[in-house]
Amino acid sequence: MQVIASAPAKAILFGEHAVVYGKPAIAMALNKKAHVKVSDNSNNKIYVNVDKLKLSGYLDFKNNNILSDSPKKGILKYILASIKKVHDGSGLDIYIDLDIPIGGGLGSSAAVTVATIAAVSKYNNMDLKKEEIAKYSHEVELEIQKAASPLDTTVSTYGGLIYLEKDAKDIVQLNVNQDIPVVIGYTNSRGNTGKLIEAVRIRKNSYPEIINPVIDSIETVTLNAKDAIITNDKKRIGELMNINHGLLDALGVNTKELSNMVYNARNAGAIGSKITGAGGGGSIIAYCPEGLEKVISVFKETDRALKADISKEGVKVTVSE
Amino acid sequence: MQVIASAPAKAILFGEHAVVYGKPAIAMALNKKAHVKVSDNSNNKIYVNVDKLKLSGYLDFKNNNILSDSPKKGILKYILASIKKVHDGSGLDIYIDLDIPIGGGLGSSAAVTVATIAAVSKYNNMDLKKEEIAKYSHEVELEIQKAASPLDTTVSTYGGLIYLEKDAKDIVQLNVNQDIPVVIGYTNSRGNTGKLIEAVRIRKNSYPEIINPVIDSIETVTLNAKDAIITNDKKRIGELMNINHGLLDALGVNTKELSNMVYNARNAGAIGSKITGAGGGGSIIAYCPEGLEKVISVFKETDRALKADISKEGVKVTVSE
Repeated sequence: MQVIASAPAKAILFGEHAVVYGKPAIAMALNKKAHVKVSDNSNNKIYVNVDKLKLSGYLDFKNNNILSDSPKKGILKYILASIKKVHDGSGLDIYIDLDIPIGGGLGSSAAVTVATIAAVSKYNNMDLKKEEIAKYSHEVELEIQKAASPLDTTVSTYGGLIYLEKDAKDIVQLNVNQDIPVVIGYTNSRGNTGKLIEAVRIRKNSYPEIINPVIDSIETVTLNAKDAIITNDKKRIGELMNINHGLLDALGVNTKELSNMVYNARNAGAIGSKITGAGGGGSIIAYCPEGLEKVISVFKETDRALKADISKEGVKVTVSE
Repeated sequence: MQVIASAPAKAILFGEHAVVYGKPAIAMALNKKAHVKVSDNSNNKIYVNVDKLKLSGYLDFKNNNILSDSPKKGILKYILASIKKVHDGSGLDIYIDLDIPIGGGLGSSAAVTVATIAAVSKYNNMDLKKEEIAKYSHEVELEIQKAASPLDTTVSTYGGLIYLEKDAKDIVQLNVNQDIPVVIGYTNSRGNTGKLIEAVRIRKNSYPEIINPVIDSIETVTLNAKDAIITNDKKRIGELMNINHGLLDALGVNTKELSNMVYNARNAGAIGSKITGAGGGGSIIAYCPEGLEKVISVFKETDRALKADISKEGVKVTVSE
């Protein structure tokens, strides 16, 4: 028996960093996914291969141990913790394929976690509801990262456009019919999310009467953007992304490389562009309803980029014999 | 008889654009100047030469006319209007030298105006007080530009560090003893100040509940910066410049070229850097109390830049026979 599950990556459209202070945020599922294929292992071992990372290894289920020499074995922690939620420890071959870079702020760990839980649970003839997949996946992210918003795992599970309410009171799917064509540009360096959040906190504590209004303005940007997305007002969506980018720069999470990509995208016709995620490295997102080609072409020479659109579906499982 | 007057250029340190909405601003006089040499003209004509711009021409005092083929003759309007304040129309040779680019947001027209009025009035044995030079110079800027803040002409006249109070109620000289070493990086393109102010106004009117707090935050940045400058708290001065830059980006006046220069400067050791002036082209200012050399060197290959410091003196006149 073989089970394949796939789960979308995510990009934050509005509200990153402000979310740390209880403000709302909007994220979209990308049609770039983590694919997890689970099949029998004849040696009764749990073998994992992530071809794209040139990474393979064994998971010692009983001793909660990872056996791999790869410098990129971090992702195996998520896979082991995921399997533990829905598996008894018998042999498995797990092949993972990724349409997205690891650590680019695109929620790769959440996508891998969601797809792994979906695939392995199905392999074990469990019929988990999406609600349960999302819950287990968030627990895995919490175990590994110590702190984690449920946003990433929610987006990977349900797909579509996700609105995280103020004070994370609720996560709701926004009902949109339109495509949301974007270019994601990603840097070689991964921003350290924890350090960036801490740097923003220090700036906020040093200049509360300046930074608190900036965070409030990001909240208002997100609230306006929610309406603009629902009414598919492309011009406003773009302008609000541009404003959000400047406010993120004021928080201190911009870099030369990110800024270059943001302006390259705008100059090539993106209606809006901004840092997506924590900044300090990581990724930008450019909104390109008037065509992706010119925008992607400016990235080809100097930067790394991928074309994406909204993934209206979330995690998806197929079974074959 | 020959009279030479020189007047410093200026750079806005904090508060540009917000000043349009009655917020305070801080500007510094730069030790980069306009130099105006006035001497007799034997043909009873008023001849002007600006060697740096490869510009020369005659001013028809009586008919208020400029006789020049140069595409850069715009500056002659300021010179003619300046002379009219303090001269009877007899022959003059006027040689102008500039340490600064024209139209880079560094107040070149104000510096030329102030120095011209100071030189020609002295040539005519008038002993104008600085107060009068500043007043006439502002009138000239108003005549030529239709709208003009008195900030530029005040800085060029008095030198030092100038604080423009809220609602432009008063312009006061801040008492500082320290040097303020900066690198000015200027782009090839001149931002159109009027259009940029209009674009900010449109953004403000489209998103008042987002942009008004941004403008309020710029005000708070400027108020904090005033204290930081008076106490010579270099780290805070730099951080506040960086925050101010992000807020200007959120207003929509940043460009790829400006952003590149801002981050190049920070990466090379500037404690703070930001757009100075209207943006959309024009200049950036980088604050470099820990050394100018590394910062200036990163500009040498790709950008145009100059080293500067505060000019504690304003307009200065010397007479020789």
